[in-house]
Amino acid sequence: MLNNGAVDRIFHALGDSNRRAIIERLSRGALSVSALAKPLDITLAAVVQHLQVLEESGLVRTEKLGRVRSCQLHPEGLRVAEDWLANRRGLWEQRFDRLGELLDGPVPSRKKART
Amino acid sequence: MLNNGAVDRIFHALGDSNRRAIIERLSRGALSVSALAKPLDITLAAVVQHLQVLEESGLVRTEKLGRVRSCQLHPEGLRVAEDWLANRRGLWEQRFDRLGELLDGPVPSRKKART
Repeated sequence: MLNNGAVDRIFHALGDSNRRAIIERLSRGALSVSALAKPLDITLAAVVQHLQVLEESGLVRTEKLGRVRSCQLHPEGLRVAEDWLANRRGLWEQRFDRLGELLDGPVPSRKKART
Repeated sequence: MLNNGAVDRIFHALGDSNRRAIIERLSRGALSVSALAKPLDITLAAVVQHLQVLEESGLVRTEKLGRVRSCQLHPEGLRVAEDWLANRRGLWEQRFDRLGELLDGPVPSRKKART
């Protein structure tokens, strides 16, 4: 069971468009930090900072291979965010399902007013 | 087809813990702005600002009913974020499926080295 802090870190990490661009590229395969930085319009230092946020949130894993740091997506992190969203949507949609059942069900008989 | 701007707005909106707390509460049913603000440790003005971000992103809809503004979840907005995450995870996982197929498949015959 993940605590709220973990969900907070994941959504905070996803809230930045450069970090989402990094996830987008890593979804197509592992990359080195410098290969990741190349098409992004930010400094290498900024990419390293974004990667740190992504790694701390559990969305990305990095590994030092010789002199190169290789970055790859950690799909379980994405799944945590998906589950959070799906659960909230599910709760909301359940309400409508129950409402539908009530509307489809037998009309409750009215109590006779006392005369 | 949603453009990147729409996805950006949704993830930016989800990146704030107070806004996620609002979504959390609205997943259990529609609420007025003041009922929403009550358990949150922020001012009514701040709640109104958060609601504006949530409404602009398409995650929440608000409607004026007489003197009360009613807020409700807009599940399609949550679905956009879920789909974005699921697509990225899917791309990553497909790579491993293809790798698995390669490993399960017949061993390619080696070309004979010329002697």
